Amino acid sequence: MKDQIEAYFDRLWPICRSITGNGLRESFSILSELIPFQLSEIPTNTNVLDWTIPEEWNIEEAFIIDPLGNRIVDVKENNLHIVNYSIPFEGIVEWDELVNHLHYKEDLPDAIPYVTSYYKRKWGFCLSYNQYKNLQKSGEYKVVIKSTLTQGSLTFGDILLKGNSQKEIMFSSYLCHPSMANNELSGPLTLAFLYRELSKRENLKYSYRFILAPETIGALAYLSENGEHLKENLLAGMVLTCCGDRAHLAIKKGREENTIANRLIIAALKNQFSTLRVDEFEPYGSDERQFCSPGFNLPVTTLYRSKYSEYKEYHTSLDNKEFICFEAMQENVTSLLKVIDDIENSQIYCRTNPYGEPNMGKRNLYEDLGVNANHSERLHLRMLLLNYCDGKHELDYLIDKFNLSKQIVEQEIEKLLSANLIKAC
Amino acid sequence: MKDQIEAYFDRLWPICRSITGNGLRESFSILSELIPFQLSEIPTNTNVLDWTIPEEWNIEEAFIIDPLGNRIVDVKENNLHIVNYSIPFEGIVEWDELVNHLHYKEDLPDAIPYVTSYYKRKWGFCLSYNQYKNLQKSGEYKVVIKSTLTQGSLTFGDILLKGNSQKEIMFSSYLCHPSMANNELSGPLTLAFLYRELSKRENLKYSYRFILAPETIGALAYLSENGEHLKENLLAGMVLTCCGDRAHLAIKKGREENTIANRLIIAALKNQFSTLRVDEFEPYGSDERQFCSPGFNLPVTTLYRSKYSEYKEYHTSLDNKEFICFEAMQENVTSLLKVIDDIENSQIYCRTNPYGEPNMGKRNLYEDLGVNANHSERLHLRMLLLNYCDGKHELDYLIDKFNLSKQIVEQEIEKLLSANLIKAC
Amino acid sequence: MKDQIEAYFDRLWPICRSITGNGLRESFSILSELIPFQLSEIPTNTNVLDWTIPEEWNIEEAFIIDPLGNRIVDVKENNLHIVNYSIPFEGIVEWDELVNHLHYKEDLPDAIPYVTSYYKRKWGFCLSYNQYKNLQKSGEYKVVIKSTLTQGSLTFGDILLKGNSQKEIMFSSYLCHPSMANNELSGPLTLAFLYRELSKRENLKYSYRFILAPETIGALAYLSENGEHLKENLLAGMVLTCCGDRAHLAIKKGREENTIANRLIIAALKNQFSTLRVDEFEPYGSDERQFCSPGFNLPVTTLYRSKYSEYKEYHTSLDNKEFICFEAMQENVTSLLKVIDDIENSQIYCRTNPYGEPNMGKRNLYEDLGVNANHSERLHLRMLLLNYCDGKHELDYLIDKFNLSKQIVEQEIEKLLSANLIKAC
Repeated sequence: MKDQIEAYFDRLWPICRSITGNGLRESFSILSELIPFQLSEIPTNTNVLDWTIPEEWNIEEAFIIDPLGNRIVDVKENNLHIVNYSIPFEGIVEWDELVNHLHYKEDLPDAIPYVTSYYKRKWGFCLSYNQYKNLQKSGEYKVVIKSTLTQGSLTFGDILLKGNSQKEIMFSSYLCHPSMANNELSGPLTLAFLYRELSKRENLKYSYRFILAPETIGALAYLSENGEHLKENLLAGMVLTCCGDRAHLAIKKGREENTIANRLIIAALKNQFSTLRVDEFEPYGSDERQFCSPGFNLPVTTLYRSKYSEYKEYHTSLDNKEFICFEAMQENVTSLLKVIDDIENSQIYCRTNPYGEPNMGKRNLYEDLGVNANHSERLHLRMLLLNYCDGKHELDYLIDKFNLSKQIVEQEIEKLLSANLIKAC
Repeated sequence: MKDQIEAYFDRLWPICRSITGNGLRESFSILSELIPFQLSEIPTNTNVLDWTIPEEWNIEEAFIIDPLGNRIVDVKENNLHIVNYSIPFEGIVEWDELVNHLHYKEDLPDAIPYVTSYYKRKWGFCLSYNQYKNLQKSGEYKVVIKSTLTQGSLTFGDILLKGNSQKEIMFSSYLCHPSMANNELSGPLTLAFLYRELSKRENLKYSYRFILAPETIGALAYLSENGEHLKENLLAGMVLTCCGDRAHLAIKKGREENTIANRLIIAALKNQFSTLRVDEFEPYGSDERQFCSPGFNLPVTTLYRSKYSEYKEYHTSLDNKEFICFEAMQENVTSLLKVIDDIENSQIYCRTNPYGEPNMGKRNLYEDLGVNANHSERLHLRMLLLNYCDGKHELDYLIDKFNLSKQIVEQEIEKLLSANLIKAC
Repeated sequence: MKDQIEAYFDRLWPICRSITGNGLRESFSILSELIPFQLSEIPTNTNVLDWTIPEEWNIEEAFIIDPLGNRIVDVKENNLHIVNYSIPFEGIVEWDELVNHLHYKEDLPDAIPYVTSYYKRKWGFCLSYNQYKNLQKSGEYKVVIKSTLTQGSLTFGDILLKGNSQKEIMFSSYLCHPSMANNELSGPLTLAFLYRELSKRENLKYSYRFILAPETIGALAYLSENGEHLKENLLAGMVLTCCGDRAHLAIKKGREENTIANRLIIAALKNQFSTLRVDEFEPYGSDERQFCSPGFNLPVTTLYRSKYSEYKEYHTSLDNKEFICFEAMQENVTSLLKVIDDIENSQIYCRTNPYGEPNMGKRNLYEDLGVNANHSERLHLRMLLLNYCDGKHELDYLIDKFNLSKQIVEQEIEKLLSANLIKAC
């Protein structure tokens, strides 16, 4: 699978994405080969919660020609050379003016920084400090930015793999950064390949929702339309971000303490990685900031390897193919499939009819004559499960509390499910 | 009283009861001399929650004649000889076929086991292993089962001793086992004699509900009709089961932790038995399984001596008059009367109108001129009670928390009750 | 300010107040120079919760002439000489009858006791035990009580200083005791001068409600009309009583544990008085008995110096100008202004729109280009506050929990308030 991930990476990498525009659409189009998103286009100027969908940005070409006639920064060489959402501009500018439009990082002299100006109308170029140092720094420079800002739309996609339960498990990532690897493509690629694998399964217990949207504004647009639905149906969610580097997988809890979501996801990951790093919730990072805003307060965790704040290559041209490894993304997929296994296998049940004991006899859940089996441990376990499957107790909690055998409990749950006495909820 | 209990025991013992039928009705008829149940007849095929009322079963005679012409198992000798709810059958069967219809317990060779088949149409006989061993085990046997399974009804009874409060204290037991002592007659007899004694009292604070129904299906039929009423009005309940043997009284908590019911009943029993055995809730046993099912989740405890799982005679002919003692049942009644005393005397009050302070003056609860008494301890206590009688604080809790004199608190409560400022709730 | 307080004290002192009548109205009229109450007149016989507004009482003159022709107790000398709400009476009575109408305190021989009979129609006189001892105690006495009990009304006043929030901070005191200092005028004078000072401020965060009503019946009349409004809007309240003597200020908690009100008010007072006396709630005292009755259960604390039960002069003529000091009342005002400062400065915020992250960019809350500042500590703090300002976390709680700098948090909060992203709530 990792070669396939790499092939998709190589196709997505060169595209100049932004939070709107044709680069974004082209990226969705490629990913749709793996995950058939239902795409939404939200028009420019639509209000989404506190925000407004900006004009759509597209760029044809952008470069600077130095006084000697050399093209010194050209978006054709690296998408990061242009400040994302730069307004169109063509003209001759003196160095003293040009320098106000140049961005570089002295502390990381080989890196082209990633700079955006979605809501303030500006233009600018980004370059490495080493390149900057070697400029002539005088004379006239020709600037060409053939970009457009027009009434258009913002694109996001989602898809629901329907399971037996209306309760949903959500995976979400973001698409908007041009030519960045860990803090962009690791998430969508994990999401898309996870979908491809999961969609091969049949008879899922839960419904699985996959969301891909431009970070922040896209998530807000999504929640503006679907936030109430998620409040009603979301059992557990996970934002995928910066999960392509060589660090171990780590999880950040959702905002609300002691949710089923926090417990299930952490337990499922610990089954695979006994020394799993678990971070407390904090309202920084990626789209968990939106999902866990106080009004929605959804049970959404965040999965990453190196947090954005923990690697220097973040938001620069050094967050590239060398920085990541495709084994990590493959591990993400296989690991999340196991998390899904655990969620599918170890869940919250509730009685289909919680009033009184169900008639086990008519469902052949008693031995037809009760001399020996009537009061066996098995019958007790069955009665215990029928009593405590009330939507408030996860099975693993019951196993722990009553010191039960997981294997036997699972056999019993199967029987009760088959008998339609309990249901996943 | 124990001689009277024994006399009723002796009349009830020979009757061949089941979960429906004339044996059940005859038993209700005898008990109605002590406790004038309001009887309900629920017709065959009525749906009660997840269950259906079965056909009514009656039996005229049932026996086997061995190849030598001897009647070897005859329901006239012991009601347990016939599998309860056996379908009618008459004919000659070979030993090899007959043996499939015989039930015995090798591990308890003198005991006739108690076997039922309410929902599967079968016939069968039960006998001791010792009797079984001595059979010829070959040849032809004549089988006669003159039973009927007809459109009829299931009988249950309840009665409410109305007190001043609509809040109810419930005692429940079951009637359906033929010729068993601890796991049958100990409960109904305790219930009936408790009613007889309690009904002599006047001016009860709480209303007392007594329920007697066939176990499981009867309790379900009862809850199907009255479950919502109990959810609204039940303050505390107790299932009486296996309470006639020589062990000490014990109590099992209701499903919900920290209810007024659990606290009051346990405290009341501990006032009598300082080393009282208190078991955690578990969803096995008798009709607490129905009352404490997750949908009803009623505050119902369970009273027993030996739990069904703790004595080998359970569900056999050895659960008989020798196994029990009538002193135990008499103690049940006197002990429960004391529990009722404690519940009556130590209760939960709420203000009749909880907004603002009541006008004590117009009710002569102030000295008419306040020079001396205005700020006495008594007035303070009165005000404290008027403030904290909010339906959430039992009096004993307040006495403990504020280090009050129980005697004086009770005097004050009397005054506030007389003044109609608070009510039991 | 203390001289002004004293001047108002001197004007209010001689007025013969009661829970109704012209003395009460005259007192409101004087206080209205400081605090422009909106006055309500509740007619006689109106039902207010459990109570009824009594007839209005006014008194013209009342005295006794002894057998020698001397006026020995005259309401003109001290308002306490007449039992408050005495019915009219004129006539000659024998000593043996008169003595039943006389009230005095042997244990406090110089004090005239304060006696009322609002709801029982009686007449009576109060005098010091020393005066009583010197009476002739025989012969005929002339009694003159020119009082009226008529269909009238009870007067109360309140006023709301509107702040930016609909949430209210309440101060309440009472007006009804004739010629008593600590247990009467200390409260209304503190309230009135506090209002005068607070009303000079502009742009208050919270709304401030000032209530002055006859004790008990007036508070009940007030709650009868406004109790539901307070249940919805009251953030914190304080009853002012017995706060004019020389003891230190003390606070009694409201009935409900762990409210924002208890925490904020106690913290604010401890900022001024590190050894502040904090009493647990008890349902005795002044109008907190009504505000904290179980039906309303409002977050109302009580401020006093000596509790009514802690000074012997209480409810006698010795609770007079000598007993109190105007420095104390001035300190009340300055201290409560600081409490208000703390409440205004250290508060509970909630997001104006709690769904998703707000757009900080359009409010210039990001650096316009994010190269350096994007992930600064400050931005993190800002995001943390935007996430946890949900109306459930006081700022001081967050400062504690996340180990933040109060100064920097306050700067941030200012920015978020200016940006209209959060509001006091």
